[in-house]
Amino acid sequence: MNTLAQERRKAEFDVESMKVVWAGSMEQLHLSQRMAHLVANDPVFRKDFRVTQSRPDLFKNTLRKAAHAWKLVQTLRLTEEEATKMRNYIDEPAYTDLHWGMFIPSIKGQGTEVQQQKWLPLAYKQAILGCYAQTELGHGSNVQGLETTATFDPSTDEFIMNTPVLTATKWWPGALGKVATHAVVYARLLTDGKDYGVHAFIVQIRSLEDHQPLPGVIVGDIGVKFGNGGYNTMDNGFLRFNNVRFPRDQMLMRLASVTKEGKYVQSDVPRQLGYGAMVYVRKSIVMDASNYLSRAVTIATRYSAVRRQFGAQGDKPEIQVIDYMTQQSRLFPLLATAYAYRFLGVWMAWLYSDVMARLEKNDFSTLPEVHACTAGLKSITTSTTSDAIEECRKLCGGHGYLCASGLPELYAGYVPACTYEGDNVVLLLQVARFLMKTLSLLGAGKKPAGTAAYLGNVRQLATQNCQVIKGADWLNPTTLQHAFEARSARLAVNCATQIAEASNQEAGFTELSMELVDAARAHCELIVVTRFMEALKRELPGREVKSQLQVLCNIYALSLITARTGDFLVTGYLSHEQIDLAKAKLRDLFRQVRPNAVALVDAFDHSDYYLGSTLGRYDGNVYTNLYNDALKDPMNQSPVTEGYEEFIRPVIKQQLQLSRSKI
Amino acid sequence: MNTLAQERRKAEFDVESMKVVWAGSMEQLHLSQRMAHLVANDPVFRKDFRVTQSRPDLFKNTLRKAAHAWKLVQTLRLTEEEATKMRNYIDEPAYTDLHWGMFIPSIKGQGTEVQQQKWLPLAYKQAILGCYAQTELGHGSNVQGLETTATFDPSTDEFIMNTPVLTATKWWPGALGKVATHAVVYARLLTDGKDYGVHAFIVQIRSLEDHQPLPGVIVGDIGVKFGNGGYNTMDNGFLRFNNVRFPRDQMLMRLASVTKEGKYVQSDVPRQLGYGAMVYVRKSIVMDASNYLSRAVTIATRYSAVRRQFGAQGDKPEIQVIDYMTQQSRLFPLLATAYAYRFLGVWMAWLYSDVMARLEKNDFSTLPEVHACTAGLKSITTSTTSDAIEECRKLCGGHGYLCASGLPELYAGYVPACTYEGDNVVLLLQVARFLMKTLSLLGAGKKPAGTAAYLGNVRQLATQNCQVIKGADWLNPTTLQHAFEARSARLAVNCATQIAEASNQEAGFTELSMELVDAARAHCELIVVTRFMEALKRELPGREVKSQLQVLCNIYALSLITARTGDFLVTGYLSHEQIDLAKAKLRDLFRQVRPNAVALVDAFDHSDYYLGSTLGRYDGNVYTNLYNDALKDPMNQSPVTEGYEEFIRPVIKQQLQLSRSKI
Repeated sequence: MNTLAQERRKAEFDVESMKVVWAGSMEQLHLSQRMAHLVANDPVFRKDFRVTQSRPDLFKNTLRKAAHAWKLVQTLRLTEEEATKMRNYIDEPAYTDLHWGMFIPSIKGQGTEVQQQKWLPLAYKQAILGCYAQTELGHGSNVQGLETTATFDPSTDEFIMNTPVLTATKWWPGALGKVATHAVVYARLLTDGKDYGVHAFIVQIRSLEDHQPLPGVIVGDIGVKFGNGGYNTMDNGFLRFNNVRFPRDQMLMRLASVTKEGKYVQSDVPRQLGYGAMVYVRKSIVMDASNYLSRAVTIATRYSAVRRQFGAQGDKPEIQVIDYMTQQSRLFPLLATAYAYRFLGVWMAWLYSDVMARLEKNDFSTLPEVHACTAGLKSITTSTTSDAIEECRKLCGGHGYLCASGLPELYAGYVPACTYEGDNVVLLLQVARFLMKTLSLLGAGKKPAGTAAYLGNVRQLATQNCQVIKGADWLNPTTLQHAFEARSARLAVNCATQIAEASNQEAGFTELSMELVDAARAHCELIVVTRFMEALKRELPGREVKSQLQVLCNIYALSLITARTGDFLVTGYLSHEQIDLAKAKLRDLFRQVRPNAVALVDAFDHSDYYLGSTLGRYDGNVYTNLYNDALKDPMNQSPVTEGYEEFIRPVIKQQLQLSRSKI
Repeated sequence: MNTLAQERRKAEFDVESMKVVWAGSMEQLHLSQRMAHLVANDPVFRKDFRVTQSRPDLFKNTLRKAAHAWKLVQTLRLTEEEATKMRNYIDEPAYTDLHWGMFIPSIKGQGTEVQQQKWLPLAYKQAILGCYAQTELGHGSNVQGLETTATFDPSTDEFIMNTPVLTATKWWPGALGKVATHAVVYARLLTDGKDYGVHAFIVQIRSLEDHQPLPGVIVGDIGVKFGNGGYNTMDNGFLRFNNVRFPRDQMLMRLASVTKEGKYVQSDVPRQLGYGAMVYVRKSIVMDASNYLSRAVTIATRYSAVRRQFGAQGDKPEIQVIDYMTQQSRLFPLLATAYAYRFLGVWMAWLYSDVMARLEKNDFSTLPEVHACTAGLKSITTSTTSDAIEECRKLCGGHGYLCASGLPELYAGYVPACTYEGDNVVLLLQVARFLMKTLSLLGAGKKPAGTAAYLGNVRQLATQNCQVIKGADWLNPTTLQHAFEARSARLAVNCATQIAEASNQEAGFTELSMELVDAARAHCELIVVTRFMEALKRELPGREVKSQLQVLCNIYALSLITARTGDFLVTGYLSHEQIDLAKAKLRDLFRQVRPNAVALVDAFDHSDYYLGSTLGRYDGNVYTNLYNDALKDPMNQSPVTEGYEEFIRPVIKQQLQLSRSKI
């Protein structure tokens, strides 16, 4: 029996039940399996040669896949949910991500009923292909600083769009470079002699007949990005406007409009409605994080079980690297984190529906808290996941550096998540601002709610230290919860105190930025721990499923505590002894996970096709496949390399032309 | 005046003098400038299209560069030092790295006089091209586990080399895949019915006439590696042997030999002589770390000064991102680290000469300490540098993700340093073992020396806490030194105590691996801090050069303390208040560096060619060049993308063939 088969026999829980928990439900599991199977068995979706293709070939092949996928959607009459799942399994950034994920939602969120009726049917049948053109060469996070202009001309009832300076060039939008026919463009609205700030417009940029850029439109691809494959399948683009005219009704007018006389009019639609979409996007990002993390962890776990190193005794083979404490301490917390983020994503789906229900009733009371919490969760889950993918690559040793491991592409394709939809540091500063505000309102008797409710208890949290006396105490959920609450509250209070001492509050905030980022991170990690523990209070069917998750939840919490001892020690909440107890308990928990590790990653149910990793194969047949893959590499087409006659033979034969004139 | 010119006027020190300090001497500076200039101005060495080339084209172009460089070496009669510098500026991993850096040194270190006289002249004139074939598909760090065999056949006075199992396939050696004619191969020596363990052999693998693999040799490239460009210019290869025979005298016999009767004979050359080469290699790795780190920091610093975001007031532009505390707290410690590693490298060069002098006198007394210290320094400098390159990329925001930033290639090309010449975690465990041994010998009255001397003072270090009362106290070198010594000593003692309590010492060591890794890291960081402070005791000419370095040294030390507060707090060495003082002092120091930041990276003297980064250009003209570079991208050869007719038009025109049979 091979190594992974042996590992699977060790598992102490029912893997099939865990698959259902991970997928969310039996229906979701079956949906995923159907779509994964559909993609994996269709030769058009082959992806193993992705890293050896030139960028233009790679891109053209992505166009092929997108067209083929669209054909499948129609032929098989896939639902929107099925189509989205299928695109996920195709596992390749493509223009359709922006069309379905940004262009259409923008029109839905910011277009009037009339505009939606005009544009959405065209977009739904892909008779137009859209992108979302916000960021500019000189402007990223600061949307209010955008420089593209849309000047209203009442004489023709049109807007005139311009790129007044180089830094106003639209830069980065996906699907823009080579594909989109239309763009939702963010630009400063100038009318009636005034600058009304940034608004959104639908602008056609390419002909629907021959795909040529329209007059006045300069558009193209911004060039190669990090990594083999990765985001290079996407045509992130640039876009400049030279007096491009379009009718007034292409301004997205749900929140504000311009009359044909050029008067700017705000609608009475509450601005807060946009928050719903933002929560939805952030929920999706967190779910993506758990997905990417689970793929990296699957590869590293399986390979760590297959790989052996040192410690051979007599006829016995070397030790599996997964048995080393150094490997376990780096790998198992990431395994636990993948599960933690999955439960977090489920909770955020609930949060989204809660927000939407409130918005319908014009109840905006929870928005500041929801805004801060989702911003922070987007930040910490994407930062942690991108670091974790690299860590998994390193856990695979030298072979992790081969593209055959699948991990380089996974990293390069994932890491932009740290930047898009809000830079992760900027987002944490938003969380910090919310925390400072919440603390300042405590004095006025305002009770914090939701994920910030614990701050109402700040005095007790600031004074009562950890009660752990023996290792087992660390498994008490109340103890863990209290530890994370106390850490977060104390870091926040420490910041608030120091800011209060500054002569200028804003300057104090700026000065303490890094401490505030730490406080924000602590707040967010508390939320993740809490959601994981809450999820385990529900019934989870299947033999030993819940007990396994309980172990992982404890690993998640304790590994954070032992990784961030400074936070817990600085205010005397924990003692040296309590930290040593936490570390020892963590090692115990690693021992409990060890026999279940392979089964716990099997429960993610990722197919070999989806993983795209020789190291992470389900059958563990790593070495034969690494070797056979290498034989097929384009570099091995001939035994003697191209360039030998020109550049190697003359060196060996001392026949290089050495005349000075030749150099 | 443009932004960077303004920045340069703010500098408070003499940049030209700092360049001399960084380079090591005026002679070194001039040498570097000459070689950098030679490479930058030779069109053969162009590297800007590297990320758009297919792997075979990329590789062929590297062969062209290597041949051209060799031509230059001969035509210009370059010294070995000049040639090495030139290869460094060509900035592309190539087979010559292995030929000069591993193949030749192996023969020098392990060959007899006779063998050196036979092989070295051929290698020096590149009439043969060599590689270093140690690692196997199934075996990396554990050299003793290698499975390739070299069986002596006394009947023909030959060795017979074989790859008995798949996992014995040589895997990873650079220059092996497509170029090398010869390899130093590590294999188990079997003779006289016995396995004598792993030894080195010179084996010819390709014909010197037509470059075909010799009979019984199966050799090729192992495939695409992480990143665009990066190590894909190298032909990391695989190699299998099927009864390959070669004469007995191709075993490298300096340390042990086989007689023609097949008798294994050890020579009386001390095994320790090999340590010299190891120290030399590790010194080079540390120098490389400072070089790579300085390039990444140059790019991030210049771009942070050019880039503006938020905070525009009235007609004033937005704030330079380098003015944000969040940017400074992430960037300036890395700037300080680049300088710290440079001084560390200089010290390691001294250490190397000291070791060599001792070895000549058969004085092996310092070897265990030198072995541990250089292992640890290799580990922490390469781990820190690879993380720092990624951090610099993130500090460049979205644009850092473009290959035009130069940072993706820098990262992908650097990160293998964490794995080669010893996995970084394995190396730290070696340091930890040395620390535990040193502590255990204290009882026996053995006084530790060199970088471990402070452990002789362990009792005082374990009891006397930090004396800092006000912020300025943190600038006292004795205080900083004591803090790092106390942290390291206490972490080590804590490990030793816990191991002593274990029933089995070896099991205790394994169990505590992660704590031991932390202790080892603390020990190594102490060494770096100490070497930086020591370097500043010497005279350093030039206006305000030393004072600037003093600021950087303090930043290096204090940023480590504030990043690892847990270590310092856990044993009560520091108080909460002292940490807040350290953080506040660090912010002061950042303010002192701020006006000098651009000049401090100018002092690295990296040319635009060498940096290969649009974001890091000396003139700061970032946006124009990003835009112009994009226009030249292969994707923008035509306004309408390839694939439009086949895959986009049918979608837009609803003309996809939807018959099921087509799918």
